[in-house]
Amino acid sequence: MFKVCPVSAWFMFISMDKGAFSLSSGNAPYLFYLEHIFPNIPSFVILKIKSFEQIHYNKGDLMESKRIAGEKAVEFVKDGMKVGLGTGSTAYWAIQAIGRRVKEEGLQVQAVATSVQSEELAKELGIPMMPFADVDMLDLTIDGADEVDPELHLIKGGGGALLREKIVAAASKQLIIIVDESKDVKQLGKFPLPVEIVPFAYELTVKKLKKLGCEPKLRMNGDQLYVTDNGNYIADCHFDAIANPVELHDTLNGIPGVVDNGLFIHMANLVIVGSADGSIRSISK
Amino acid sequence: MFKVCPVSAWFMFISMDKGAFSLSSGNAPYLFYLEHIFPNIPSFVILKIKSFEQIHYNKGDLMESKRIAGEKAVEFVKDGMKVGLGTGSTAYWAIQAIGRRVKEEGLQVQAVATSVQSEELAKELGIPMMPFADVDMLDLTIDGADEVDPELHLIKGGGGALLREKIVAAASKQLIIIVDESKDVKQLGKFPLPVEIVPFAYELTVKKLKKLGCEPKLRMNGDQLYVTDNGNYIADCHFDAIANPVELHDTLNGIPGVVDNGLFIHMANLVIVGSADGSIRSISK
Repeated sequence: MFKVCPVSAWFMFISMDKGAFSLSSGNAPYLFYLEHIFPNIPSFVILKIKSFEQIHYNKGDLMESKRIAGEKAVEFVKDGMKVGLGTGSTAYWAIQAIGRRVKEEGLQVQAVATSVQSEELAKELGIPMMPFADVDMLDLTIDGADEVDPELHLIKGGGGALLREKIVAAASKQLIIIVDESKDVKQLGKFPLPVEIVPFAYELTVKKLKKLGCEPKLRMNGDQLYVTDNGNYIADCHFDAIANPVELHDTLNGIPGVVDNGLFIHMANLVIVGSADGSIRSISK
Repeated sequence: MFKVCPVSAWFMFISMDKGAFSLSSGNAPYLFYLEHIFPNIPSFVILKIKSFEQIHYNKGDLMESKRIAGEKAVEFVKDGMKVGLGTGSTAYWAIQAIGRRVKEEGLQVQAVATSVQSEELAKELGIPMMPFADVDMLDLTIDGADEVDPELHLIKGGGGALLREKIVAAASKQLIIIVDESKDVKQLGKFPLPVEIVPFAYELTVKKLKKLGCEPKLRMNGDQLYVTDNGNYIADCHFDAIANPVELHDTLNGIPGVVDNGLFIHMANLVIVGSADGSIRSISK
């Protein structure tokens, strides 16, 4: 899918890499995944982009902390492993690092991706891909998250790929989550919980979500409802604080019309937090 | 969707009504929903049909017992009610009976349907339909089932509409289930449990289903995978006996990739069982 995004002079250019760059508009930096890579991007052109995500943080060099965390995670990838590749701005750096190790060290891996976007990037970088039919169990999946709590429960799905990411994570012996420090929270819920719902009678499903004490907002794509890779809608549920993520996860998945939700419970084995000052912190259980 | 089905001389014609008729081939009767209605159907023509279902029973006049149960259920429909219309060969008779009451008694209802097929039938019969956006709570839904146990837990989804049926049932104050006596069982599980799964990495999801101790078979539509109205696949899970339907329901819905499953737990309020001899039995909790 293409989006056309006006890029005007009040955007401040931060950094650029193959296939992605970020721009800052006041307090709201955006990460863009480019459809076409230009050697130089003037600040006033209109670009054809694949997707973009808003980065929910406004201090420090987040790109750098994401890159550091992503590269650290890739140290866990060993020869012969079957690896799941996440989606989003942090997973991007992990895929880059795996690609580099494949090229420079001759690392032998087979990978599956959680999005078309990540699959394309992996292929470009020469990472060998395998079909899902051949996967019994993956050794390791590396992915990002929108929030991580001290129990290593996660909120994911800000980028809209929660279901595919969860399917792949559930088929992995190990799930390593890489985040910048803005995602490391005491309690989940400030980030609106993405809930994937089927289009049929979605009005009924949204009413049921509301009864759980949140403010659900249907995700939009311009003036149309946003549609996931699986053909569903996303309701971003503003809970503000989630007291019991385990219970909420089961309650949500028990609602007919809910395909899945962005709570990843007892799935992450290791969380790597990168900070803007270049330091790394690991949390495991 | 159209199916073309060769109807040859070895089929025995049983009965016919507007939009549906049944044929018997040895022990396996089929119910056909016709796309075009012909006044007389020669036994050797090739018919254009909307859908068909195999009737898992081979004695007595099942059409008659379904009709009796369907008409009994419709006695519960009162003026001013918002009604959910089920899908399948038994719900068909209930919709017919509601249509008759609207026409003959001036019954005032507003309805929502669980399938395009039921919606079309209802419209043809002059039953006023309402959009889902206007539904807060339905007063009553009448639907069929593939199996009913003494706790009134159900297996549904033989016709492939389990998710839509469950969404509508979950938005209803009362769910009345109408079945013929072949569906009234001591324990659920002889009927293969339909599980709706997303197409992405469905191989991984099927492997997870297998680990629950069943034999999952992907439902086919000719030589293609069957696709639900929601764009998903169905794995028919042969458990043979389901010891704990409540637990199985939650376990299944906790598997990433599972959209929903055909177990309807604590949803039915009343089950009406029609017998081939014309008698009716009601089970409620």
